[in-house]
Amino acid sequence: MPSDGPPTHLIRLADLGPDRVRDVLDLAARLKGRPGRGELAGKTAGMLFFRGSLRTRASFEAAVNQLGGQTLNLTAMSDFWDLEERDGSVMDGRAPEHVKDAAAVLSRYVDLLAIRPAQQGLSWDVDRQDREIQAWSRHATVPVINMESAQRHPLQGLADLMTMREQLGKLDGKRLAVTWVHSPEPATVGVVHSLLHAALQEGMEVRVAHPPGYELDGGVIAEVEELAQDTGGSLSTGLALEDAVEGAQIVYARSWQSLEDYGNKTLGASHRSRLTDWKIDEKLMELGDDAKLMHAMPIRRNVEVSDAILDGPRSLVYQQAENRLHSQKALLLTLLR
Amino acid sequence: MPSDGPPTHLIRLADLGPDRVRDVLDLAARLKGRPGRGELAGKTAGMLFFRGSLRTRASFEAAVNQLGGQTLNLTAMSDFWDLEERDGSVMDGRAPEHVKDAAAVLSRYVDLLAIRPAQQGLSWDVDRQDREIQAWSRHATVPVINMESAQRHPLQGLADLMTMREQLGKLDGKRLAVTWVHSPEPATVGVVHSLLHAALQEGMEVRVAHPPGYELDGGVIAEVEELAQDTGGSLSTGLALEDAVEGAQIVYARSWQSLEDYGNKTLGASHRSRLTDWKIDEKLMELGDDAKLMHAMPIRRNVEVSDAILDGPRSLVYQQAENRLHSQKALLLTLLR
Amino acid sequence: MPSDGPPTHLIRLADLGPDRVRDVLDLAARLKGRPGRGELAGKTAGMLFFRGSLRTRASFEAAVNQLGGQTLNLTAMSDFWDLEERDGSVMDGRAPEHVKDAAAVLSRYVDLLAIRPAQQGLSWDVDRQDREIQAWSRHATVPVINMESAQRHPLQGLADLMTMREQLGKLDGKRLAVTWVHSPEPATVGVVHSLLHAALQEGMEVRVAHPPGYELDGGVIAEVEELAQDTGGSLSTGLALEDAVEGAQIVYARSWQSLEDYGNKTLGASHRSRLTDWKIDEKLMELGDDAKLMHAMPIRRNVEVSDAILDGPRSLVYQQAENRLHSQKALLLTLLR
Repeated sequence: MPSDGPPTHLIRLADLGPDRVRDVLDLAARLKGRPGRGELAGKTAGMLFFRGSLRTRASFEAAVNQLGGQTLNLTAMSDFWDLEERDGSVMDGRAPEHVKDAAAVLSRYVDLLAIRPAQQGLSWDVDRQDREIQAWSRHATVPVINMESAQRHPLQGLADLMTMREQLGKLDGKRLAVTWVHSPEPATVGVVHSLLHAALQEGMEVRVAHPPGYELDGGVIAEVEELAQDTGGSLSTGLALEDAVEGAQIVYARSWQSLEDYGNKTLGASHRSRLTDWKIDEKLMELGDDAKLMHAMPIRRNVEVSDAILDGPRSLVYQQAENRLHSQKALLLTLLR
Repeated sequence: MPSDGPPTHLIRLADLGPDRVRDVLDLAARLKGRPGRGELAGKTAGMLFFRGSLRTRASFEAAVNQLGGQTLNLTAMSDFWDLEERDGSVMDGRAPEHVKDAAAVLSRYVDLLAIRPAQQGLSWDVDRQDREIQAWSRHATVPVINMESAQRHPLQGLADLMTMREQLGKLDGKRLAVTWVHSPEPATVGVVHSLLHAALQEGMEVRVAHPPGYELDGGVIAEVEELAQDTGGSLSTGLALEDAVEGAQIVYARSWQSLEDYGNKTLGASHRSRLTDWKIDEKLMELGDDAKLMHAMPIRRNVEVSDAILDGPRSLVYQQAENRLHSQKALLLTLLR
Repeated sequence: MPSDGPPTHLIRLADLGPDRVRDVLDLAARLKGRPGRGELAGKTAGMLFFRGSLRTRASFEAAVNQLGGQTLNLTAMSDFWDLEERDGSVMDGRAPEHVKDAAAVLSRYVDLLAIRPAQQGLSWDVDRQDREIQAWSRHATVPVINMESAQRHPLQGLADLMTMREQLGKLDGKRLAVTWVHSPEPATVGVVHSLLHAALQEGMEVRVAHPPGYELDGGVIAEVEELAQDTGGSLSTGLALEDAVEGAQIVYARSWQSLEDYGNKTLGASHRSRLTDWKIDEKLMELGDDAKLMHAMPIRRNVEVSDAILDGPRSLVYQQAENRLHSQKALLLTLLR
């Protein structure tokens, strides 16, 4: 159901801005302790998956349901199809429908659209533009939430920020180590991009460890460095594991694919095979300042992070995963009321 | 949950009859302006998809949810299987279950069954009989709603009629042009059959444009011509585009597959390749009487209909798509109360 | 949401024990006549399918919905993945996540996990251990319900016991014939194992007919024979059809795969092809004591059981299927309150 003004979308954290992000997380903290009160009764959240999902889908559906709303689940594989994005095109190819029309119609059926777009996976220059989710947000007349695009995962960013605030209180000047770790199947880089945005909007000292060839997206780096200038935060990249973890309060492990090798799986696997030393164990964690471990999951145990860390007092990973639920509830209430 | 009397099904619009169709649409108009009031609290609508769906599934689920009910979604691909339809058969073949048993059991779990049957796609003589959905309606003890069979799409018919009433008020004597248009991937013909039924039960003057070889189903034509005799409506078929649109208040574009070529995709594609002139643009629309465009979607823009029409004041397509929601809510309240 | 004490799971009927099973069925009988009262408002039941399902999924979702709760449906095919079960393993293989982590996280999103695990289908020695569902129950902090593993189908066992109680009242000393029947595609054996448990905990006289090579699992037989000693029930196996049905009040037909041929489909099909005489017809039923027919469905009509029996007064199969709904509602209220 279209509302009167233009809707607020969440494609990246900057769409909300620092103040509204903090408001959402303040609300999330209040929601964490109490059951829902039917705030979303009669509301329907449409969920469109062009890629599979476990944690995001489960936590998002649970968030809607606990607030008394309903989800409408559309899976690209069985219900959906290729959508045309370019304006003015003569649609005699594969796509039977324009995203303009799909977005306009679904906006009349549901109160919000949460979308996990496909990733072409061939060219980072193409995928980094997030064209698909941008097209949805241009044409929808209800709020569009990004459930992880190539460049961003703002829902994870909200939960990560909530978890760091719970652990450390005020964040400015606190030290966050973001550590690339080896995995036979690397994950997406959007989680890291949204994490940097979240940490630097709060003025944290962020130190990123990764091997050569695993640099983050240049456009995102420029964006978050500008943000750091406003907040007094700082960003170093390309560090060795030990250098990043030294003195850190939080160690955030993530295995992301190389943006240089993007689209070449064989080359990517070959490069990674020499990097099995990039993992987190107790010896490394001891370099930090009573360091806690975060990870967006799924985790390959004893490859990315040792069992001893994950099952011991340093781990925040379950708390972090649970915060997906609470921060999404707060976001839903913020966007829909 | 079985009720006491035999349930009312909606396999085709004639199952309701003109008076009840009008009652449903009167109720739909009242529902359009106001939120649901939990009328279906505690009710569950079972939805069975033997073919994919976007608009129908989304609008139907949203309708149920907005009224406070729940949907139970069963997809043939993953949850379901081949069902035997023939009475008395020795089931030593592929089908592990008889539709008689599936319908009896599901009728005890849900309050209504909405079904999109498969289409064999090999022989129109077979598919035109709608045997699968007929078998469900024979054996179910709750209402069965047809979410588009080979021959009929009564839910689209309801929304189409609602939209024409909103646009034109009283419909008798008003002129409707139904125009075949070219598409690389033609749609099903059931939408047109239900549209003819809807328009002729209201006494409209219906003029159908299509190339030779794209005649509608003879049985349906006979049925709606009989209906026209009662209502003063009229039906002409086989017209050229310009002749059909001349003086029309509504132009309804649809690309349907040839029932002659049915089951022969290569031949069908070959025939259609010579028909790319069959499309809707402003010049054609100007032949009408302040003509508005309707289309059941998805639309191949600039192939079936030009952007200028779709994005301009002549288009009713989003209103029409939205009316799927309202008319289905009214139908649900009618069948379930 | 984790609760304070350890949750009660239902992996097999023994997890509840005879007294609690009877309490659940007493509650089920009371629920059968009346609509839900929103008892599960705000609660979410997670459903994980690693194998397809029709009746179990539909009846379970309907049960949750009728009580005012929500279901969160995760299908292994599209949303999920291989999970590692072994503690301490170095996860550099196919599985990207450990069941320990998936269970911990989902326990924080939902109030209950209902799981249909995969069956490897290669070795009965492996599958009979139900390792996957056991791992979930070890790691989840919310109740885990078994929606049919290789060894057990406790939800079917509850519905079967409810149906026999409705039909026969007090069950001790009543005679139940469990009859293997031929099918081109045999079903799983877990239904029979849970049925034996249910019947023998109530002191029934159970007589099992099956061809040589179709013996039930030795571990389950030992378990239920021990149960029978407490209750005065009795168990005979390996009988001919006529000997089992003689004097029975209930004839329960089921086609199960041979545990000897397990993992060898060709050999299994070859053995079964000689057993087409194993079917239920009126002549056989007349050997019973006003015998009624039960079957967990799906049924291959006129192969497993004749139409005349299924459509006549001897059949309890629809009542039995409906009882899935009521007994599951009672179970949900028992585990979640």
